[in-house]
Amino acid sequence: MTYCLALQLDEGLVFASDSRTTAGVDFVSTYRKLFQFQPTPDRFIVILTSGNLATSQEAVDRIRRDLDATDATSLRTVKYLFEAAQYVGRVLVAVQADHAAALRESGADGKATFIVGGQIAGRPPGLFLVYPEGNYIAASPETPFLQLGEFKYGKPVLSRIATENLSIDDAARLALVSIDATMKSNLSVGPPVELAIYRRDELKLARHLILDEQSALLKAVEQRWDHGMREAFRHLPRFDWETDAR
Amino acid sequence: MTYCLALQLDEGLVFASDSRTTAGVDFVSTYRKLFQFQPTPDRFIVILTSGNLATSQEAVDRIRRDLDATDATSLRTVKYLFEAAQYVGRVLVAVQADHAAALRESGADGKATFIVGGQIAGRPPGLFLVYPEGNYIAASPETPFLQLGEFKYGKPVLSRIATENLSIDDAARLALVSIDATMKSNLSVGPPVELAIYRRDELKLARHLILDEQSALLKAVEQRWDHGMREAFRHLPRFDWETDAR
Repeated sequence: MTYCLALQLDEGLVFASDSRTTAGVDFVSTYRKLFQFQPTPDRFIVILTSGNLATSQEAVDRIRRDLDATDATSLRTVKYLFEAAQYVGRVLVAVQADHAAALRESGADGKATFIVGGQIAGRPPGLFLVYPEGNYIAASPETPFLQLGEFKYGKPVLSRIATENLSIDDAARLALVSIDATMKSNLSVGPPVELAIYRRDELKLARHLILDEQSALLKAVEQRWDHGMREAFRHLPRFDWETDAR
Repeated sequence: MTYCLALQLDEGLVFASDSRTTAGVDFVSTYRKLFQFQPTPDRFIVILTSGNLATSQEAVDRIRRDLDATDATSLRTVKYLFEAAQYVGRVLVAVQADHAAALRESGADGKATFIVGGQIAGRPPGLFLVYPEGNYIAASPETPFLQLGEFKYGKPVLSRIATENLSIDDAARLALVSIDATMKSNLSVGPPVELAIYRRDELKLARHLILDEQSALLKAVEQRWDHGMREAFRHLPRFDWETDAR
């Protein structure tokens, strides 16, 4: 399983992902799920991957190969970011179709779902979730975050706190807290945690952290959040039958 | 969908459930999911239901009918609480089997999953989750809570805070917070929220609340928890590149 998320803020974009890949409990490995592309100086694109690892890797390989071709649509040629999402969707559909018959026979699920985000100079940043079927949805002011994979455990805190006017550093902290809740609940989501911050109009990552289990930052966030949750719990209202005046 | 949970504490048991039942988005209704049984003065048993509503209702009807029979196993005749879980499991399997062929034909899922908890005098309280297949698992000191239905959204806070030595009122508050997180994330889980507190050796409910959307208690818990989470978020550690000394 996987947990990736991305937030679209007034100040820019935040991307975060775990790095655990599992094919059964006895085949657990670590793979990065965040890929950066800057095929020309006027654009910067990040892709987060989830789902079948073979599909994800082949799709990323094809996306890279298309950058070398002079005649093909690619992340280099698209004029709008939504066209990048459309294009990534077509690549996903093509990879899945190539292996569909064999996968069906073995009963395996070859589906993969990606997040595509970034900016093309002169236009605002954008964030899209691309489905295995090749279509997409965009983040919006009302729904400023998108999630991939094991999304439920980490969603309540996002729904509560994520707004587009959050500072980009606060959004990065929120992403860490959301991943922390997920890692604590599902063993198939695990470190290192990759965190990338893109500031509007910079056309490169402002920050890119890879936080492993020993990361002091990750530990500090976990401990403070745990402490804060316990404090919040301690301050909940009493039932009317409770007499102690805590 | 449904969200029910129960906690097993040193002081007793806490049961909580939402009351929303859906068969598609245009057929949303309210059904209680918490059922109490005291067939003889030496025992008190609570059942929480989830899954197919028809299966759940027929199973509860049969469990009640069996109480009138003099020759059948029932909640009246079992000697251990695990036997009550076994018995409820057999009823679930029988109801599902009776409708299996027709349900298969229509493509509907007739499965239901129950929580069975309570106490038989002279033995400790117990808490069991009974699967649609008729088998069960018990709560334990290491895992003092069981959940039914849409469990993921409300699990992180339980994993963090639930221990068997929590006071029973704290556990009831925790159950409300867990249900609040779930109701905020999934529209198919909704009020009224039913909350029941069973104190060890009392063989009756100490408290039984039905909290609708207007409930001042539910609103107060929601508001304080929201405030507490925001405070926890505000106090997360800064990244090393942040200069402001908040």
